[in-house]
Amino acid sequence: MVPVENTTTGAHALIRTLVDAGVDTCFTNPGTSEIHFVAALDSIPELRAILTLFEGVATGAADGYARMSGRPAATLLHLGPGLANGVANLHNARRGRTPVVNIVGDHATHHVAYDSPLQSDIETVARNVSSWVRTTARPADLAADAAEAIAAANGPPGQVATLIVPADISWSAVPDAAAPEPVAVTPPGVDHEAIERAAQVLRTRTGTGILLGGRTLREPGIVAAARIAQATGARLLAERGAARIERGAGLPAVERLAYWPKLAAKQLEGLDDLILVDAQPPVAWFAYPGQPSSLVPEDCQVQELAPPTSDVVAALEALTDAVGAAEIAPALQSRVQIPLPDGPLTAAAVCQTIGALLPEGAILCDEAITSAAALPASTAGGPRHDWLTLTGGAIGQGLPVAMGAATACPDRPVIALQADGSALYTIQSLWTMARERLDVTVVIFNNRGYAILDAELTGLGNDAVGPRAGALVDLARPDLDFVSLGAGLGVESERVDTAGRLASALDRGLAEAGPHLIEAVLPAVR
Amino acid sequence: MVPVENTTTGAHALIRTLVDAGVDTCFTNPGTSEIHFVAALDSIPELRAILTLFEGVATGAADGYARMSGRPAATLLHLGPGLANGVANLHNARRGRTPVVNIVGDHATHHVAYDSPLQSDIETVARNVSSWVRTTARPADLAADAAEAIAAANGPPGQVATLIVPADISWSAVPDAAAPEPVAVTPPGVDHEAIERAAQVLRTRTGTGILLGGRTLREPGIVAAARIAQATGARLLAERGAARIERGAGLPAVERLAYWPKLAAKQLEGLDDLILVDAQPPVAWFAYPGQPSSLVPEDCQVQELAPPTSDVVAALEALTDAVGAAEIAPALQSRVQIPLPDGPLTAAAVCQTIGALLPEGAILCDEAITSAAALPASTAGGPRHDWLTLTGGAIGQGLPVAMGAATACPDRPVIALQADGSALYTIQSLWTMARERLDVTVVIFNNRGYAILDAELTGLGNDAVGPRAGALVDLARPDLDFVSLGAGLGVESERVDTAGRLASALDRGLAEAGPHLIEAVLPAVR
Repeated sequence: MVPVENTTTGAHALIRTLVDAGVDTCFTNPGTSEIHFVAALDSIPELRAILTLFEGVATGAADGYARMSGRPAATLLHLGPGLANGVANLHNARRGRTPVVNIVGDHATHHVAYDSPLQSDIETVARNVSSWVRTTARPADLAADAAEAIAAANGPPGQVATLIVPADISWSAVPDAAAPEPVAVTPPGVDHEAIERAAQVLRTRTGTGILLGGRTLREPGIVAAARIAQATGARLLAERGAARIERGAGLPAVERLAYWPKLAAKQLEGLDDLILVDAQPPVAWFAYPGQPSSLVPEDCQVQELAPPTSDVVAALEALTDAVGAAEIAPALQSRVQIPLPDGPLTAAAVCQTIGALLPEGAILCDEAITSAAALPASTAGGPRHDWLTLTGGAIGQGLPVAMGAATACPDRPVIALQADGSALYTIQSLWTMARERLDVTVVIFNNRGYAILDAELTGLGNDAVGPRAGALVDLARPDLDFVSLGAGLGVESERVDTAGRLASALDRGLAEAGPHLIEAVLPAVR
Repeated sequence: MVPVENTTTGAHALIRTLVDAGVDTCFTNPGTSEIHFVAALDSIPELRAILTLFEGVATGAADGYARMSGRPAATLLHLGPGLANGVANLHNARRGRTPVVNIVGDHATHHVAYDSPLQSDIETVARNVSSWVRTTARPADLAADAAEAIAAANGPPGQVATLIVPADISWSAVPDAAAPEPVAVTPPGVDHEAIERAAQVLRTRTGTGILLGGRTLREPGIVAAARIAQATGARLLAERGAARIERGAGLPAVERLAYWPKLAAKQLEGLDDLILVDAQPPVAWFAYPGQPSSLVPEDCQVQELAPPTSDVVAALEALTDAVGAAEIAPALQSRVQIPLPDGPLTAAAVCQTIGALLPEGAILCDEAITSAAALPASTAGGPRHDWLTLTGGAIGQGLPVAMGAATACPDRPVIALQADGSALYTIQSLWTMARERLDVTVVIFNNRGYAILDAELTGLGNDAVGPRAGALVDLARPDLDFVSLGAGLGVESERVDTAGRLASALDRGLAEAGPHLIEAVLPAVR
């Protein structure tokens, strides 16, 4: 009989497979059915396990981590309800095509028949957000299943792969064996017909737009697209739900589609052709009575250069060659030093201050959909940075993504621009930022309301909005005090109500190690 | 053309159907697809809409509301991710057989084809926690669908009924019509064979237990069961996941099964027969290597007197007659005044203080699974009260249930006993308690750890628990400061570290209107 401390269990084999494949970070919120995974952590120190206080923090952090590292993180969630708590941010990861190895514990296989209180159908919930779902059936299968999950997560495109691990599969002894390696998926080669079709349009027609999404929004893709634009006059646009856009002085600038459909339609106006690269045809986030769902102008021809399953950057580079733009210098954004504003604080003043103080290599996590409208303009000519936005519309993504990004890039400053309403969905993120001493400066836009919903209500006409409806989009009575919330979760926090004080606070937050929270008090929504 | 302000929309018809059927409270966290429901609120003031900052608060509050009022509340959730955020507490409602009319907005029917960012398969997530799910297909069907949802929710047993309402179904005009009435489900009559089978055992055998669950744990069921026990010597037990137990001096006492399987097995030891009434056979919450999942003693015969779908109290009363116990006086709990403890604060001292100061008619919401182990004994002889416990094991249930219970019973004091770890899942509840001025006194057991998980780790043997595993069950570094968290969400909060200070704080919390939070600092778990 092998002594317990030397036994390799399913949990050990799982963790070994993860770390051998480069998945060395796990955002956890475990329970009893995951306790053997937890116990195995000390014998495989290569896996960094980071505790979160809520599952949506863990899944959002895994998303942010992978956006910046290019490698998936793992999660560790507790049964069906724990998975459900993580689904909103897995939805965002799915929409952003971000790889996540989503590990969910389940009851022991022999326990399922007893319908104990936490029993539920985990797979159906997982399928909603995962391209790959498997419940491991035998301890000896766990390592191979994990390798397959990692390969599925890696894509292309990046995906959420959910591996469900019954407790007895974790605790059972398995033979010592080398961890299996994930078999990388080989994307299909460049589709030459699609390249030629796009090149033909670019060569012969005017009014062509190129909509960039997914992996094309980093330097190689943006530079290739900007060369094409320079050579052909095409307009470059970025999808709204971009997981990561590289931008700033020295890179070509790409305009991101607006949230409000009327503004986005304006951006697309006049296009006769639209070429999609790792992007879906642009649509309104929501339907409105009598308004079209599609944002594509009437009579505009849409074609796909390269789908997310392919090597999208190679396709763009092939198109560069096809239109003779390979040697053309792309238009680059020049450096613009924004001045610090003064006077009372407004959302625009916050964005201007961010632009004025933006450090080199910053990661901007932006979940202040309406308040941060001025952000793109105020940061476009700043030092080079990454911009991480809300991919799938499920709010509560900003703070966890900032946490994950800071975990992946400990040497880069992270600034999280966060609306008050959406901050509250995953406010527990602050505690993990403090525990892990992550360099995140959180700026809360506190306008005491759900600004989007207020705009939607107002859009229904003045007569439609009574006090009872208004109360449901109003975050006052009582006012949220984010300084207290931050302090309660261990983060140094301060409140500012002038542009000058914001600049000082932001300077301090960026200069000092560890997380800081700045509550920017803005004019109230209503 | 009917002017807009006089138009009856689907949203109006839905709200009218709810209030006409007695569903007059709605816990909301709406988004754009629910905005027409929100806008309609001012024209039908009979529906009280209560804003929550997170969907798990809304669903847990609906659960607490129905446990105390006996009538379902409605929820209003935003699309698939909003539903997912509410699933953990819907799981608890499902396990507790509590009625909830769960309303989820969806994209307009014509918008679905565009796969916009928030599109997901809502029905599959809903099915996991709902006995009844429907997506309304036409505006004219919405009122009838709502009536059917209400009927399904009402049961018996109480259920989660999920009604998915596409935005265009809400905004479309519908003919003015009387709201349809839900058709009540008629439960099957008492099963006389089952009654006679149980009576036979009770008359002829010793070592019989009666396991009460669901609706039997209120006065009529408990009194009937206590008469049977008095007449036959049977032992009364309550299921662990009891949604609501009426107890205190003047009522028969019923012992609730313990959380830890070894303790629960001890409670069931020696039983030769077990009669289930609105309860499942007792099982361990989790499986452990080499331990049985079932808690039923070997050779113990299990029979069901009445399933949850039936009139379970009528079945108990019929059994009372069958064993000749109808006229027998049941054993009643006598009044025991617990003295106030003094000295340093421990979990037992907190429970003793609660017992000493328990007001008449209190509602005790208990989600401090390990810390509140002493609670049953310290409150058994207190004034009459209700005890609401964690039904389905998905943590984050306590604060929302307290919020809902206080909404249903504004004249009764509510005390929420809450573990630190589980408090953090739905801490946003505090803000709604403050906004609605609900009389809830929240006592946080702050032992700086996940005590259950610490016990599970420790149970694996000392060698198994290294520092990296230990860190995942430890809530220190940084310490959570619940006084700041409470203040940040608008609730008057204080910290106590002696029994004397707890008593003063509890006195004050119970005496003053509105919510109060008391952070009870306990010895750390590790």
